[in-house]
Amino acid sequence: GIAITEPSAGTDAGGIKTTAVRKGNVFVLNGEKSGISVATVGDAFIVFAKTNPELGNRGISAFIVPADLPGVECKGYEDMGNIAVGRGSVYLNDVEVPEENLIGMENNGFYQVMNGFDLSRLLIGLQCVGAASQSIDETIEHVKMRTSFGQPLANYQGVSFPLVTHYTQLELIKWQAYRGLWLRDQGVDHSKESSSVKWLGPKYSVEAIHECLLLNGHYAYTKEMAHEQRLRDVIGLEIGDGTAQANMMVIAKKIIGKEFRSVPVKK
Amino acid sequence: GIAITEPSAGTDAGGIKTTAVRKGNVFVLNGEKSGISVATVGDAFIVFAKTNPELGNRGISAFIVPADLPGVECKGYEDMGNIAVGRGSVYLNDVEVPEENLIGMENNGFYQVMNGFDLSRLLIGLQCVGAASQSIDETIEHVKMRTSFGQPLANYQGVSFPLVTHYTQLELIKWQAYRGLWLRDQGVDHSKESSSVKWLGPKYSVEAIHECLLLNGHYAYTKEMAHEQRLRDVIGLEIGDGTAQANMMVIAKKIIGKEFRSVPVKK
Amino acid sequence: GIAITEPSAGTDAGGIKTTAVRKGNVFVLNGEKSGISVATVGDAFIVFAKTNPELGNRGISAFIVPADLPGVECKGYEDMGNIAVGRGSVYLNDVEVPEENLIGMENNGFYQVMNGFDLSRLLIGLQCVGAASQSIDETIEHVKMRTSFGQPLANYQGVSFPLVTHYTQLELIKWQAYRGLWLRDQGVDHSKESSSVKWLGPKYSVEAIHECLLLNGHYAYTKEMAHEQRLRDVIGLEIGDGTAQANMMVIAKKIIGKEFRSVPVKK
Amino acid sequence: GIAITEPSAGTDAGGIKTTAVRKGNVFVLNGEKSGISVATVGDAFIVFAKTNPELGNRGISAFIVPADLPGVECKGYEDMGNIAVGRGSVYLNDVEVPEENLIGMENNGFYQVMNGFDLSRLLIGLQCVGAASQSIDETIEHVKMRTSFGQPLANYQGVSFPLVTHYTQLELIKWQAYRGLWLRDQGVDHSKESSSVKWLGPKYSVEAIHECLLLNGHYAYTKEMAHEQRLRDVIGLEIGDGTAQANMMVIAKKIIGKEFRSVPVKK
Ligand SMILES: Cc1cc2nc3c(=O)[nH]c(=O)nc-3n(C[C@H](O)[C@H](O)[C@H](O)COP(=O)(O)OP(=O)(O)OC[C@H]3O[C@@H](n4cnc5c(N)ncnc54)[C@H](O)[C@@H]3O)c2cc1C
Ligand SMILES: Cc1cc2nc3c(=O)[nH]c(=O)nc-3n(C[C@H](O)[C@H](O)[C@H](O)COP(=O)(O)OP(=O)(O)OC[C@H]3O[C@@H](n4cnc5c(N)ncnc54)[C@H](O)[C@@H]3O)c2cc1C
Ligand SMILES: Cc1cc2nc3c(=O)[nH]c(=O)nc-3n(C[C@H](O)[C@H](O)[C@H](O)COP(=O)(O)OP(=O)(O)OC[C@H]3O[C@@H](n4cnc5c(N)ncnc54)[C@H](O)[C@@H]3O)c2cc1C
Ligand SMILES: Cc1cc2nc3c(=O)[nH]c(=O)nc-3n(C[C@H](O)[C@H](O)[C@H](O)COP(=O)(O)OP(=O)(O)OC[C@H]3O[C@@H](n4cnc5c(N)ncnc54)[C@H](O)[C@@H]3O)c2cc1C
Repeated sequence: GIAITEPSAGTDAGGIKTTAVRKGNVFVLNGEKSGISVATVGDAFIVFAKTNPELGNRGISAFIVPADLPGVECKGYEDMGNIAVGRGSVYLNDVEVPEENLIGMENNGFYQVMNGFDLSRLLIGLQCVGAASQSIDETIEHVKMRTSFGQPLANYQGVSFPLVTHYTQLELIKWQAYRGLWLRDQGVDHSKESSSVKWLGPKYSVEAIHECLLLNGHYAYTKEMAHEQRLRDVIGLEIGDGTAQANMMVIAKKIIGKEFRSVPVKK
Repeated sequence: GIAITEPSAGTDAGGIKTTAVRKGNVFVLNGEKSGISVATVGDAFIVFAKTNPELGNRGISAFIVPADLPGVECKGYEDMGNIAVGRGSVYLNDVEVPEENLIGMENNGFYQVMNGFDLSRLLIGLQCVGAASQSIDETIEHVKMRTSFGQPLANYQGVSFPLVTHYTQLELIKWQAYRGLWLRDQGVDHSKESSSVKWLGPKYSVEAIHECLLLNGHYAYTKEMAHEQRLRDVIGLEIGDGTAQANMMVIAKKIIGKEFRSVPVKK
Repeated sequence: GIAITEPSAGTDAGGIKTTAVRKGNVFVLNGEKSGISVATVGDAFIVFAKTNPELGNRGISAFIVPADLPGVECKGYEDMGNIAVGRGSVYLNDVEVPEENLIGMENNGFYQVMNGFDLSRLLIGLQCVGAASQSIDETIEHVKMRTSFGQPLANYQGVSFPLVTHYTQLELIKWQAYRGLWLRDQGVDHSKESSSVKWLGPKYSVEAIHECLLLNGHYAYTKEMAHEQRLRDVIGLEIGDGTAQANMMVIAKKIIGKEFRSVPVKK
Repeated sequence: GIAITEPSAGTDAGGIKTTAVRKGNVFVLNGEKSGISVATVGDAFIVFAKTNPELGNRGISAFIVPADLPGVECKGYEDMGNIAVGRGSVYLNDVEVPEENLIGMENNGFYQVMNGFDLSRLLIGLQCVGAASQSIDETIEHVKMRTSFGQPLANYQGVSFPLVTHYTQLELIKWQAYRGLWLRDQGVDHSKESSSVKWLGPKYSVEAIHECLLLNGHYAYTKEMAHEQRLRDVIGLEIGDGTAQANMMVIAKKIIGKEFRSVPVKK
């Protein structure tokens, strides 16, 4: 579990308040991490904390924090989906972490996260596309067999055209993800591509699965078919690792320029 | 519980196979009804059955069927939402229903249903708008308080404009529902208006609640906030009493003409 | 012709730079008005100018300015649509306007404009809906007659469903406009409703006419059919009297609160 | 100029009525071709005609028809855009075409067209994306310079987010086009990819250019800026070489199966 988010700092990850204060050869961590994947089942967390609060983004470091260290407490949530992920809060009260648990360079944590996002966002996008494609495949089989007014549903453009739309959108974003991975492999900057995949991958997938659920009729509203679970799961992936807006801001900065931040400038 | 739908007849309600055969002063009912609201908790059902199978839509009748009559069996579903509604299947095996339980005129059931839909569709639309408006209200309060990069979320157009969009769409469809009710009150045909409300009411509401869930951040992905339940509930109301396509077909017939049925004509 | 807009002040109407300085019993006007309807054909303009630049929005006044006064010069544009409207720029060089040409109270011009917008926005919305509805009507007749693969186009849901969508959206916004007019008649605040109509009326109309053009096939791409002209005209009405964003900001202020302005606050 | 379309056969290209009857060593062509690019300026046309009307799609052939052959007459249209293309009708009255002007195999013309579409559709998509990308680039420069309420337009998410959306959609479809070209190069079937590009390329481009026009304010409504011309041009490319519906039908057949044709089957 990677633990960045806090009750008062989500999209604005640089605003975290958890602190790590050096004391001899340990760092003492204090703070509250929220919305953390595998909080209830993980053996250890990568916790981001401010080692130099005055430096803002430039004063954050990452630590490996075993879940059984004294002062670490975890509380699970009752989520609407991704149940197996066991999401929850991690409370850190005077947790003493040995200095060798510092990951990478001190004060460089923010940039480690952002670099990690460039990869994880591509993978999350593909994960969503996988679930949605499965729903599309099952629904194509359904609409071939199911008849209404004496015709297979597939013969109605009101059925086939939405399937074509969702199928095509998933194709487009899948190949964008592959292109992003290829750029990464080449060592070329790909934040823009990763953010497009993290934004549109879950979005297109939610739309596709939602439509598939409806095209399968009322049985798909029960837990006997997998569409409703996929829908609940993929909605979570719209939020984790950055929302639509967070990712659109990344792309905006790249194509318009860093100085136009969608964040009001002081005057 | 009104019981029309069957495993092989949903949107095409005229295709039901349940039969009601007169035998002395009872009707004997046989068939399987599926997806029926309150199947597991209702004391009685209004069951639609073919009293004259050769007449198609013109040979359907409606009966009051107490749930405790011999031959009536109910099985609940595990739905993704609307749990309290207790939806399920109703099996009818040689159920003897006294003739005074026939509702309205014999063979006129299809038109009774369609007339009932004209009202229920307006009410379902409003029900969805109610849930979604509550989510909008709560989210407006949230984005005024919650800050990101030092500003209330409400100051970002990427937050306020989606709220404006959903708020406005809900307003439009709410007043269309009121207009439909007024037309009904005046005794004027309002199928077109009812269908627009049944189609766009749940659709706009799903979109609004989905957006509100996301705008509330990751806590809204848990059962501590009501958005996720509203979302699951309202998706069911996209299907019950007629899907988007079913309602678009009603409007198409009204504005283009009955002879253009979206249903392939024989040639 | 109402002349507010200037090269550097459109959406931000309070930022106009034209000045009106009292000199005895005339006001001397200087400035440049741009994008003004009937600039090339109007006999007179209602010009908004700053009578008290230090007061911002509270220092603007409105004047009747005959087009033939010395110092008034007009230049027409070559617009993409609304050709008959004769839009252009109006240059004011030391134009002496008699004081009785001041409309309403001095320094109250901004609020006069805003009040005027509440009405004009409803009317512009209806104007667009009128054009679009005519395109829908003509297209419905076309798709009944035109065949493709041996069927009237109307039988394909890929044709009828878009028509249903646009028809319904136009209905919704038409009745919102009527409701706005009724609220105005009752003396009730209706800025929110007017802005929704000015935003969605032209938008839905552009979408509807665009679709109608396509559904009529390649002949609709020529000037022999009216769709292409309607499309060009209605696009102009998306801008005049306030763009989508300008109107969404009005609604945002009403539902979220004046203090959340979508305009960065100083810090 | 490739001349397939006729007054009564557009999307349904197999329904053309122009005939080519062998008479000694010439073919005699009769018919009317409509909506043909370069009709008014081309030196020759590739005309598709039925050489064996009984065989349907399998009885069509392609001929090179010089525009100055006796019996060939051309009439230009007044189009809303693509003016330079000189679109019009080509009338063929007992035009005698030498047999060596037959292109490819007799009766194989339909499949030649469809194969040609697989390429031309990719190129048209890219052509549209090119125009739209230019509008995006120009608009990005505009929103950096133009201020409103004291901020550059680029600082408002109501401005930057639409730009991000259109930019991303254009990127996605551009790479889909490149992928289609690569598949073609590999000799792999790519009809599905070509159709996705022909459908979404012009569509995304129309949406992008339309938005750019609006973001540039009222000067973009005049012919001084290029957005309005690009918009008018790209709308034509939504129709030529196959409309959205025509291309969605191609994709539907590929992913659902040939037997589900969106065309009502006889019963
Ligand atoms: C399934 C799931 C798994 C997760 N796993 C982890 C994990 O393992 N580790 C971890 O650290 N975190 C995890 N998270 C938390 C996640 O990273 C945050 O929820 C996310 O970054 C958003 O932060 P927030 O919830 O505080 O919302 P906020 O930041 O408060 O945002 C609320 C809404 O406002 C929008 N918004 C915020 N700022 C702006 C702005 N400047 N402009 C425009 N819009 C804005 C957002 O897009 C969002 O719609 C997980 C979340 C979920 C749902
Ligand atoms: C919460 C809930 C409550 C319900 N309560 C009741 C109840 O109390 N009583 C009752 O009788 N029923 C009830 N139903 C069942 C409901 O009426 C049916 O599910 C609905 O009519 C759709 O029928 P179906 O599920 O068989 O889907 P189908 O008819 O098989 O439709 C599947 C998909 O194909 C589309 N489709 C079907 N035909 C066409 C066509 N010709 N053209 C284009 N698209 C088409 C549909 O829009 C849908 O997307 C309920 C359902 C739900 C979810
Ligand atoms: C057909 C037509 C007729 C007209 N007639 C008249 C007339 O008779 N009299 C008259 O005075 N004017 C008239 N106008 C001008 C019109 O009022 C202005 O064009 C309009 O107010 C927009 O101003 P602008 O063109 O300067 O664009 P800008 O204000 O520069 O806006 C450019 C783009 O940025 C967006 N934007 C601007 N500010 C913000 C913000 N704060 N947040 C988010 N987005 C923002 C806008 O929505 C727009 O998309 C007419 C215009 C047209 C096209
Ligand atoms: C700029 C331009 C250049 C062109 N250049 C050429 C050229 O060089 N050579 C040439 O031969 N032609 C050319 N065309 C003509 C073009 O190929 C046809 O216009 C196009 O194929 C559509 O045919 P149609 O106009 O007859 O419309 P129709 O086929 O009548 O279609 C009308 C509408 O109905 C829809 N529709 C039709 N059938 C169905 C169906 N079964 N299901 C659902 N929807 C359906 C269509 O999508 C469209 O929206 C050009 C057209 C334009 C605009």
